[in-house]
Amino acid sequence: MRMRNKPWAKEKMNEYPQYVIQNPEEQKGKWKTYFPQEGPLFIEIGTGKGRFITEMAKAHPDTNFIGVELSDNVLVSALDRLIEAELPNVKLLNANAKNLGLYFEPGEINRVYLNFSDPWPKTRHEKRRLTFKEFLAVYESVLVPEGEIHFKTDNQGLFEYSLVSFSHYGMKLNYVSLDLHNSDFEGNIMTEYEEKFSNKGNRIYRCEVQFPKR
Amino acid sequence: MRMRNKPWAKEKMNEYPQYVIQNPEEQKGKWKTYFPQEGPLFIEIGTGKGRFITEMAKAHPDTNFIGVELSDNVLVSALDRLIEAELPNVKLLNANAKNLGLYFEPGEINRVYLNFSDPWPKTRHEKRRLTFKEFLAVYESVLVPEGEIHFKTDNQGLFEYSLVSFSHYGMKLNYVSLDLHNSDFEGNIMTEYEEKFSNKGNRIYRCEVQFPKR
Repeated sequence: MRMRNKPWAKEKMNEYPQYVIQNPEEQKGKWKTYFPQEGPLFIEIGTGKGRFITEMAKAHPDTNFIGVELSDNVLVSALDRLIEAELPNVKLLNANAKNLGLYFEPGEINRVYLNFSDPWPKTRHEKRRLTFKEFLAVYESVLVPEGEIHFKTDNQGLFEYSLVSFSHYGMKLNYVSLDLHNSDFEGNIMTEYEEKFSNKGNRIYRCEVQFPKR
Repeated sequence: MRMRNKPWAKEKMNEYPQYVIQNPEEQKGKWKTYFPQEGPLFIEIGTGKGRFITEMAKAHPDTNFIGVELSDNVLVSALDRLIEAELPNVKLLNANAKNLGLYFEPGEINRVYLNFSDPWPKTRHEKRRLTFKEFLAVYESVLVPEGEIHFKTDNQGLFEYSLVSFSHYGMKLNYVSLDLHNSDFEGNIMTEYEEKFSNKGNRIYRCEVQFPKR
C-alpha cells in the first residue's frame, strides 16, 4: 500500500498504548490475560487500514483480535479507526510477521488471517510472499496445534501459489471458494482492498487451511 | 453426455478387439505386455468421445493410454476416432471406474486423467462424483506408489469440492491453474467439452495431485 510518509506516525502510536501494543516481547506467554476479557486470539497479518480487524472485533465480541502491520504509515490509519470504534477486543501490533516468535509462545494464537497480501509476482521474490513456507513455519510456531489460516485474495497467481505452498507444507484444505462474492459463504467482512477490487469485477478467492497434527 | 441409444453399440465394440479391450479381467497383472510397445500406462476415466485420449496418444507415442468409458453409446464415438487414427498405443475400456480393481493390479497404472467429469451438483449425489473419496481409493489401489491424478473441469463447484476432497484424502497438490487457457501451461490437449465451454467464455480449472507415501 503506497502512502505518503508520516514522520509523526511513531509518536502517535506511542500516544495510544490502549490500541497499539507497546513492548510486545514483554507479553510473551501472557497474552491470555492481556485483553479485558479472556477468549480466543485471532491475528491478521498485514492489517492495512484496519477495516477487517475492526469489523471482525465488532461482530465477534467474545474473540480478541490483533492486527499486525509492518508499516508505521499504514498502521496509523488503522489506529484512527480503532480510536473511533472504541472496542476492548482489538489491538494493533507494529511488527514484521517473520518476528512473531519473539512475541508469542507456541499455542498463544488461535487463528491467522491473511487478506489481500502483497502478491510479489516475480519468482525471485517468492520468499517475500506471506504464504511462503518460511512464513507458514512462523505461523505454525505460534498457533495452537492444528490451527488454521483463513486467506483471501483477488490475485489469481498468489492464490494458486498459496494452495500449492499450503499443500506442500502438509496443510489440509478445509474450505475453498473460487468466487467468494457469488458463493453461499455467510458473514464475510470485506477489507478496503476487497471492496475496491471486487467493484472492479475481480473475483475474490478464499480458503481455510489447517496445520497437520505433529 | 446425452446421446441417443445405439442398440448396435455392444456388437460394434466386439468387432474391434484391437481397439476395445475384451475380457479386461484376463489382463490383470499383465498390462505391461499388453501393448505392442512397453511404456507407462495412463488412463482417462470418462473418456467420452475420445478426443483427449487419442490426441494424447498421438503426442506421446512412448506412453500407452486407455480410455475408460461407462456408456456403450458414447464409447462407440471414441471407437470411430480410434479406427481412423490407427494408433498402436491407445485402447478403450467399457467399464465403471469403481471396478478398476477387478482389471488392474496395484501399480499397473502410472497416471489417472479426469476431464470434465459429471459435477453431480446435488449434495446427496456427492458419492457419484469421480473425485469422491471412494473413487480416490480405487485410483490409489491401481496406481503406482505416489501416483498422480491430472484433473480438468470448467465446473467451479466440482473443482472446489475436488480440491478439498483430494486434500482430506492426504493428497498433495503439485500444480493448480484457475484459468488454464490464460496460463503458461504448455501442451494442453482440449477435450470436446473443453473447447465448447471455453468458447462460451467459461474458465478452465486444472490441477495435478499426488497420492501420499504410504
